[in-house]
Amino acid sequence: MSRLINETHDPKLKSWVESANDPNTDFPIQNLPLGVFKSRSSNEPPRVGVAIGNQILNVKACSEAVHFDKLAAEAVRACAGSSLNSLMAPGTEHCSALRERLSRLLRADSKEYKSNKKTLEKCLVPMDSAQLLLPVEIGDYTDFYSSIHHATNVGSMFRPDNPLLPNYKYVPIGYHGRSSSIVVSGTSVRRPNGQTKDDDAQEPFFGPCRLLDYELEVGFFVGPGNSIGEPIKIKDAENHIFGLCLLNDWSARDIQKWEYQPLGPFLGKSFATTLSSWVVTMEALAPFRNGVFKRADNDPKPLPYLDIAEDQEHGGIDLTLEVFITSEKMRNQKMVPMRLSQGNFKDMYWTIAQMLTHHASNGCNLRPGDLMGSGTVSGATKDSRGCLLELASRGSEPIQLPSGEARRFLQDGDEVIMHAYCQRQGFRRIGFGECRGPVLPASNKTT
Amino acid sequence: MSRLINETHDPKLKSWVESANDPNTDFPIQNLPLGVFKSRSSNEPPRVGVAIGNQILNVKACSEAVHFDKLAAEAVRACAGSSLNSLMAPGTEHCSALRERLSRLLRADSKEYKSNKKTLEKCLVPMDSAQLLLPVEIGDYTDFYSSIHHATNVGSMFRPDNPLLPNYKYVPIGYHGRSSSIVVSGTSVRRPNGQTKDDDAQEPFFGPCRLLDYELEVGFFVGPGNSIGEPIKIKDAENHIFGLCLLNDWSARDIQKWEYQPLGPFLGKSFATTLSSWVVTMEALAPFRNGVFKRADNDPKPLPYLDIAEDQEHGGIDLTLEVFITSEKMRNQKMVPMRLSQGNFKDMYWTIAQMLTHHASNGCNLRPGDLMGSGTVSGATKDSRGCLLELASRGSEPIQLPSGEARRFLQDGDEVIMHAYCQRQGFRRIGFGECRGPVLPASNKTT
Repeated sequence: MSRLINETHDPKLKSWVESANDPNTDFPIQNLPLGVFKSRSSNEPPRVGVAIGNQILNVKACSEAVHFDKLAAEAVRACAGSSLNSLMAPGTEHCSALRERLSRLLRADSKEYKSNKKTLEKCLVPMDSAQLLLPVEIGDYTDFYSSIHHATNVGSMFRPDNPLLPNYKYVPIGYHGRSSSIVVSGTSVRRPNGQTKDDDAQEPFFGPCRLLDYELEVGFFVGPGNSIGEPIKIKDAENHIFGLCLLNDWSARDIQKWEYQPLGPFLGKSFATTLSSWVVTMEALAPFRNGVFKRADNDPKPLPYLDIAEDQEHGGIDLTLEVFITSEKMRNQKMVPMRLSQGNFKDMYWTIAQMLTHHASNGCNLRPGDLMGSGTVSGATKDSRGCLLELASRGSEPIQLPSGEARRFLQDGDEVIMHAYCQRQGFRRIGFGECRGPVLPASNKTT
Repeated sequence: MSRLINETHDPKLKSWVESANDPNTDFPIQNLPLGVFKSRSSNEPPRVGVAIGNQILNVKACSEAVHFDKLAAEAVRACAGSSLNSLMAPGTEHCSALRERLSRLLRADSKEYKSNKKTLEKCLVPMDSAQLLLPVEIGDYTDFYSSIHHATNVGSMFRPDNPLLPNYKYVPIGYHGRSSSIVVSGTSVRRPNGQTKDDDAQEPFFGPCRLLDYELEVGFFVGPGNSIGEPIKIKDAENHIFGLCLLNDWSARDIQKWEYQPLGPFLGKSFATTLSSWVVTMEALAPFRNGVFKRADNDPKPLPYLDIAEDQEHGGIDLTLEVFITSEKMRNQKMVPMRLSQGNFKDMYWTIAQMLTHHASNGCNLRPGDLMGSGTVSGATKDSRGCLLELASRGSEPIQLPSGEARRFLQDGDEVIMHAYCQRQGFRRIGFGECRGPVLPASNKTT
């Protein structure tokens, strides 16, 4: 089911793009994540690109410079537009052929490079000089709730008597999210207004959210879709997953608390969701499928439609996730961002294959480019909690910033920065780039 | 805020399309709803059309036959594609100019018709010979819960101690729905599979839904959108609403019951949503804005961002809604569909303007063509309940069909047909066409 380790993962590979050989880069030649960029200095339309070191390889330009054949050529044609959707639709083979072709082209020992140096170097755009755009036209966005640690921590705040509901260990719980307000890393996020009700108040009032939070999540994109009425078997699920990104599911805790019964989160979430710019393909992640989550011995087995041995053994992904914050004061004082937490995607109760299969199990059709969020990634320890609500224990244990400030929830001017990377003995470290969002004050144009 | 009554609503107007003068037609010249159709007999691409009697006027063909000027010409150009989205984007003036122009052209006394009979008649396609498609590319779909009768009836089943939650009279409760599985009237709907858990069972099981239901709703489409972070004031809300349709929010009650806590309905809803083919514009509805809902004297006033006098007085729409059913046995015996209920959209606790303004109040951006559902439209009386769950009192009072069968919930082979119409002394009755969905057996391809 999951992609195999092949020569594109060889840790000895180096690239003629020097910055890709820096041991600290997120984007060595073993990664090759896809995105959409626009040059800041020209009026050309947005293009599909591949991150390599501190450069972006313009895929279309590259295909005009050297020969691509068969599947790789088809994949390149699918990159002609200004989103990854067409490349996501046909399936894993196309993307794999493109990866293999680009890996060969970018290698330090590439003969094609030696004979086409100037032309190929012209296909590179420095990442610094490009604007990175939302890489995918997202039809539907679904957000899951797959960390049992997060569900237990948050459940104990909202429902102290009943933190983990009886369905949790059977159902990959999820809800439909808002697609329109998904923005790319770097976009400012305005603090939402909304209805909130204080516990001791008679009536709710409308005004700026006072309990603004982030949620650290992994997003994954649907590749080939399914027809309505036709479920996706668990053994086929990963063939329908194109790749992963970082996702910040901004949350207004006070709005959410007052509105969420009985139909779930709505305006407490829909004001913004931030995505990282680069989509890391499932094939790039192949060496890191050693993230095994072990259910407790007395936990129920998944129902058969969610249960195959292979998915239980190899379903996890050993992906380290980190959240950093800077306040305006910290930036004024030139302080580096402070790390708030470090967790791992392997700690999730449900795998991405299980989430996807569950989603389609009622016949719901998934389309290429649809986005699923994992839910907040929290681990068992306090320093691996993926949102402020958990980290600061609902405000009772404020976080101390190096500037002397304290944070129960986010303040205007704060910036939240998420990072993710895979590393494993015997392989090159690969990264996700960043998922960054600065917080703006609330709008005053409401009535 | 709401559109004014003008000469296009004059009940004395007749059309040279004879079938539009039939007193029983849903589509007299006073209606002119918009849709997208494809001829069954040619390979032409889908086109925007207007329903008139039992015919469809091909808008593009029509604009090639006679002169359209200014805003109407711009509106026609926006109809060049195969969805209504481009027509929805620019605002009420364009749609109004198009309506006025088509009304003049289709009048029995039109001089243009007299001098272009053959050409104009060629712009008509008999509805019988056309395939009606989903009229809009729907980005996001949001479903509200705006009938206090429905919320109370259903709440008392799921939470007997606590039927109407404390937020209901303050917050227009809603949740994000699934866009991908929205289908047009006439499309078969496959019974979903899913996890359900019997009350006395130790564990859930996976299999075909046993409590399949419909929900009678009104859908409304966003016209011009708003930018992210910029709310929409209640006094401007109807300028952002393009028109209405009928919506069947199919619901798997058993799946919904087991999955819906804590994040709301998900797979119990996302397998299918059926929309009627024609979008009735807000201007066509202008004479019927006399549907005043009066809150109980001790109910709270809406918070200021949802409260203006004009919306309270004219926000409702006097729209009669009916649901019919046929079973396979009834159809085999040539029985006519049986009416299950009759309700009215004016009985809703929240107006469409309030729902839209609430939705954007946190800065969430709405886009042209986004769809909002009202939630099940139920009235105070038993015969006005908009779903089987309520009508058959959770299965305890089965509905008797004329074939001798009984229905607690829907069976395979049943067909649900919804109708809606506005009528008022001194105006022509206008209708919505039908929203029809036959039920197919569940898929057996799950594991």
